[in-house]
Parts: sequence; C-alpha cells; structure tokens
Amino acid sequence: MNQERIVSEVSIQSDSKIILLVMDGLGGLPVQGKTELEAANTPHLDHLAAKSACGLTDPVFMGITPGSGPAHLALFGYDPTQYILGRGILEALGSDVEVGKNDLVARGNFATLKDDLIVDRRAGRIPTEENAALCQRLNNALKARIGLKITLYPAKEHRFVVKFSGEELSDALTDADPQKENTPRVYTSPLCPEAAKTAQIVNDFLDEVTDILKDLPRANTVLLRGFSKYPTIPTLVELFKLRPAAIANYPMYKGLARLVGMEILKAGQNLSDLFDAAEKHYKDHDFFYIHVKKTDSAGEDGNFKAKKEAIEETDSYIPRLLALKPDVLVVTSDHSTPSLLKSHSWHPNPFLLFSENAIADKVMTFTEKECSQGYLGRFQAIYAMPLMLAHARKLKKFGA
Amino acid sequence: MNQERIVSEVSIQSDSKIILLVMDGLGGLPVQGKTELEAANTPHLDHLAAKSACGLTDPVFMGITPGSGPAHLALFGYDPTQYILGRGILEALGSDVEVGKNDLVARGNFATLKDDLIVDRRAGRIPTEENAALCQRLNNALKARIGLKITLYPAKEHRFVVKFSGEELSDALTDADPQKENTPRVYTSPLCPEAAKTAQIVNDFLDEVTDILKDLPRANTVLLRGFSKYPTIPTLVELFKLRPAAIANYPMYKGLARLVGMEILKAGQNLSDLFDAAEKHYKDHDFFYIHVKKTDSAGEDGNFKAKKEAIEETDSYIPRLLALKPDVLVVTSDHSTPSLLKSHSWHPNPFLLFSENAIADKVMTFTEKECSQGYLGRFQAIYAMPLMLAHARKLKKFGA
Repeated sequence: MNQERIVSEVSIQSDSKIILLVMDGLGGLPVQGKTELEAANTPHLDHLAAKSACGLTDPVFMGITPGSGPAHLALFGYDPTQYILGRGILEALGSDVEVGKNDLVARGNFATLKDDLIVDRRAGRIPTEENAALCQRLNNALKARIGLKITLYPAKEHRFVVKFSGEELSDALTDADPQKENTPRVYTSPLCPEAAKTAQIVNDFLDEVTDILKDLPRANTVLLRGFSKYPTIPTLVELFKLRPAAIANYPMYKGLARLVGMEILKAGQNLSDLFDAAEKHYKDHDFFYIHVKKTDSAGEDGNFKAKKEAIEETDSYIPRLLALKPDVLVVTSDHSTPSLLKSHSWHPNPFLLFSENAIADKVMTFTEKECSQGYLGRFQAIYAMPLMLAHARKLKKFGA
Repeated sequence: MNQERIVSEVSIQSDSKIILLVMDGLGGLPVQGKTELEAANTPHLDHLAAKSACGLTDPVFMGITPGSGPAHLALFGYDPTQYILGRGILEALGSDVEVGKNDLVARGNFATLKDDLIVDRRAGRIPTEENAALCQRLNNALKARIGLKITLYPAKEHRFVVKFSGEELSDALTDADPQKENTPRVYTSPLCPEAAKTAQIVNDFLDEVTDILKDLPRANTVLLRGFSKYPTIPTLVELFKLRPAAIANYPMYKGLARLVGMEILKAGQNLSDLFDAAEKHYKDHDFFYIHVKKTDSAGEDGNFKAKKEAIEETDSYIPRLLALKPDVLVVTSDHSTPSLLKSHSWHPNPFLLFSENAIADKVMTFTEKECSQGYLGRFQAIYAMPLMLAHARKLKKFGA
C-alpha cells in the first residue's frame, strides 16, 4: 500500500488549521563560514524554532536534487517517485496555461532551420516580444481542424508552450527535438499504437508551422519536447479530507497546487500580499500552503545577500501567521538552492513544526546545522504531511 | 521504480573523483568503556571528521547483521534485499575462482561417510594441504564429460569450491547436504523442471566422487550447498557512468568489486600497497573503492588490541588520500565487527563524507557515538552512493 493511501485511510475531517510556509530553496551552503540562513537575522524564526520540533528533510531521498515538481509533491504527501510530472505540464503550469483532461501540452522552442539542418535550437534566443508576436501570428494562421484546437503560449526568449485540445490525445510520444545542432528536423514517434493518431497530428502541426515561418531568418521552425497530459493525482480533498488553499506569487506554484486540488487564493506580487491573503481567507480553509519564491530566485542568481535579505523579510511576517493561532505551523523549504551553486541542490531542508502537540527540542536557532540536532531527525519530506495532519489531530488510529 | 534506477536516470559522466575507503568491520562495542575506534589514536581521521558531514549507516536496515555480500552491495548503491548473492558465488569469489556466465558454483565440504551415514560433516577438519591434494586427485580422476568440465578448488581445512562449466546449467537446486550428522547422504533436487538436467549432473558427480574416495578413512564423500550461477547485476559503469576501480588485498572483495564492473587494480598484501596503487592509477579512474581487511579480521579474532592498531595504521595513510585532492572522500565500513562479539554485527557504521560541497557538522572525532550526532543522521547504506555522486556533482536534477 502506498504511504499516502495509509494516511488517507486514517484521515478525518476536522476544523483544526494547518499553515505550511514554504521558503523555496531555503537551504544553502556556507560562504565565509555561514549559510544564507545562518547569516540572516531571523529573530522570529529563531524564537519559533525554540518552541518547535525541528529536523531536516530529504525531498526524494539523500543525494537526489529535485525539480520543483517532485519537491512539492513530496511536501504535499505524495510519493515523488510514483507521481511523475512531465516537463510539458510543468512548463504549462509555470506559464499560467490552464490544462484540462482533454489537453496535451509540450514545451516548445523556436529554432533555426538552414539547408534542412537545425543550426540553432534556440533561434538565437529571440527577444520575448518577438516570441509573443510569433505565437500570436501562428495562432491566427494555423488552419482550422475538426475537433482539435492548437494554441501556442509564449514564454521567455525562444520558449513557448503548445496546447493541443481534443478527444483521445495521447502523451506517449517521443520528443520532436534532435537535442543537438546541425542535424535534420526530428518528428515525434508514438510510444504505443494508441498514440499513432496523436503523433500524426503533432507532425502535421510541425510541418504547417515550418511552412508558415519559412521566410524568417531565425525563428523558422519549432522543436517540441516533454509531451504531457494532465496528470491524474488524487486530490488532497479526496485523500486527506482537507479544504486546502494555496497562496503564491508565481504561476508554477499555483499550478502545482491546483494539480492536487487546492483552491488558489488571489494574491498580488509582493511578499506582504501572501500574508494579507492568508488573513483574509483564514476562516474558509483548514490547510494553507504559502509559497515564498524570492529565496529560491536569489539562490539561483548566486546572490547570497539577496537570499539572506529575502529570508529576513519573510521572517518579519512570522508574527502575523502566529497571530492567526494555527493548530500547526510548519516552516520549511521544497529543496535547497545554495547561492554558492546557483541551482537546486540535494542538501536537506531545515524543517520546523510548531504545535501545542509537538515536543519542543533543543534547537534554538532555525539553521540547517541546528535542525540536524532536532527531535524529528533527518527524514524524507513525504512524512511532512502525515506529521502536520497528526499534530492537527486530523489522523485517527491505524489498525486495531 | 528502484532506488538505483532513479539514481541511474539522473547520473552524468564527469571528471570529478570519489574515493570510498572501507575499513571492514570498523564499528565495535565498548570494552572497558571504549570501542576499538574510541580507543585508537586517530589524529588524521578526527581532523577529517571535523571538516566533514558525518552520520551512521545501517547496511540493510536496523537490527540486520549483513554478510560481506549485502554489506558491500549496499555501499555500492544496490538494494541488498533485491540483489542476493548465493553462498556459492561468494565462496568462489573468496577463493579467487573465476566465474563466468556458463559456470555453476557451489560451496563444498569434505565429509566422512560410515555405514551409509554422514558421521562428520567436516571430515575431522582435515588439514588444508590434505584438502589441496584431494582436490587435485579428484580433478585428475574425474571422468571426461562431453560439453561439461568440473573443477574443484581447495579452500581452508575441509572447504572447497566446485565449478561446473557447461551450457544451460541451472542454480535452481536444493543443497546436497543433510545439514546434520548421522543421517544418510542427500542428493540435490531441482527446484523447477528446467533444473532437472543439472541436478542429474550434480548427483552423478557426487556418486563418482564418493566412489573415488571410498577407501579413505575421513574425507570419503562431499557435501555441496549454495549452488549459484554468476549473478546478473547492472554494473556501476552502466548504472552510474563511473570508471570504477577496486583496490583490495583479499580475493573476496576483488570478486565483489568485479561483479559490479570495477576494474581490479594490482596491489600487494600490505596496507601500504593499497595506497600505492591508488596513487599510481589515480588519473585512470573516477571512483576508487579501497578495502582494508585487517580491522575486520582482528574483530573476528576477538583481538581488541589488534583491531585498534589496524585502525591506527589505516589512520596514518589518510594524508596520502587527501593529497590526491579527491572531490569526495568517504571513510566508512561495510558492517561492524566488535571484537567483543568475534563476528559481524548489526551495529551501524561510522560514516564521514568530506567534500567542498558538504556541510561540516559539529562532529570533532571519528567515533560511533560522535557520528550519531552528525548532519547526515542515521541512514541506510544504500544512500551512500547517491550522496557520493551528488557531492561529486555527478547527478543532475530529478524531475521538472
């Protein structure tokens, strides 16, 4: 039996409230002896840690650097090795493209074709505005198809998302991308007989686009990869009887939350907007996922100082969350993003769980190293959800 | 999906170098208040621990005492509950018997038959020289078989390895060993129809040997157990794109390393030979498994002092490993061998990982107890490989 099935079996509906504050990419590596979190002045988080049970989580398992998909699925209580989200669906979520049960999505690149060879897989990284104009032109120019609608959504530079909406589409398709340059165009191939019709639709689209764009110097063809249909994931409502809400500034995280059945609460682009939204809708839900992006973006940029400041800014909002008197407040991260590495990493996440049902340990400051001494020890992030539910008294006894 | 399959999926080839130093049987139990490792003077290991991430590993899971096979497979990144090595293959590896895809091997005992009963399963523990002479005599006397070659390889006292080389042999065979004395001889039986022919070959061999030896007073029959063919294990080359090398003094460990695709580097019988070989071949590989046997042998002998000295001697070579500037250096053990117990035990292994990408914790001395306070916590040894690969930047992101 899957872990989430066992938790589901013992879950009960209750009025108690859980707040999960995810500081994306929080964990770091020392620069001049201190990580971003160690260097940051975090009086509220430290005070909270002193009253909490602390630990370190591995999103997938030790050594594995997760993408945002598996890292969040684990935090939401799903086995990230069982529920795999395709690149297409993640790109669509990140671009705020709505994906339904009959939709097939893929990540696209504008590319340069010359003498029948793909000579630049990124079309010279065309400006985002040029991309937007090309997508609009294609959306207008594509021939009408019976029972099928194809739409391109521009993203940054040469990137776009394409959505095929129609009956009986399959995502069992190989990438239509040669992966390397100075090779001919590549069509998609079906991975099973049922996908043959979809492959034909996609390849017909590729030819039509290449024909429409043929007179342009740079962006005169497209490559597609990561074909994905909307994944079938049981929702948090079904699994754990929650009334969950998500508060995030960025489309990707709203999309991930929507995938698992969370209601997306409106929030602006500022950090304070997240906490305003939590206060405004506090009575309407029993589980709040609040996503802070800045910590990760700064880490990805290799900007130690900006990441430290993002941590400090987030720290200043902790009293507002505590004022809501949640039954459980967890502060953690989906994965580490050390500014030293400028990327996601495999290092575990600091984790604190504050609840009147938790045993406060000796951890007095909220840092990677201190959390390693906590009562919760080092554990896989998939256990965060049962821990939150248990401390909120939302789980009954397992077995007689 | 298996753990090693996930690691495999994200592994990439790179030039970074990993050294895994296995001090066999390192973990111990206190005698007069100190374990062997606590009693030993290990300035280099302690200095290294202070700059490393430390923890404790369980080879299989808590409470399980592993043989050398599962203990090493776990360290090499294989699930030891999925890849099972038969006793025959382990004995063959330990006796330096080369085993190929068409070979069937088993562990043998010379035994004493009297009045149609096995009265001594070990033939009075005949001297090793007598064993060697008997094996040679049998190898010469056995009748020629078409398409089949049978060879006996002497080991210590009454023990030997027998190898059947031929097409379509099966290891789905029961032991040809009554397990207790004063019972009649036992033939092997096939465990599936496909093994019937092999069972007949083995039983015919048993009768022939018993006939050849019938006039001897002690070693006048043989018992066979642990029939094994060469196991099919994906190699570290295939799985993790490594160019792995093994440096060991003893055949068993070279054999285990060969099973997982390591190149066996020549090394003499002394501890210093191991480190000479590492230096000599450092440029040719990116993963070095160095096996120190003395710590385990001393533990098995119940010799606390000898084990302590073996630890101290190994400690003196740590600077030579560090001088090679590996990207990752792990020092650990395959299993514990407390001299108090004179055997392998279930106690976890001290583990340290030194890398510029690791977070150094508060552990200041390399001991069982101190390692329990480390940043890595207590974890299953199967995660050692993904941790080593991650810190050496040989793993890309999992999932989008």
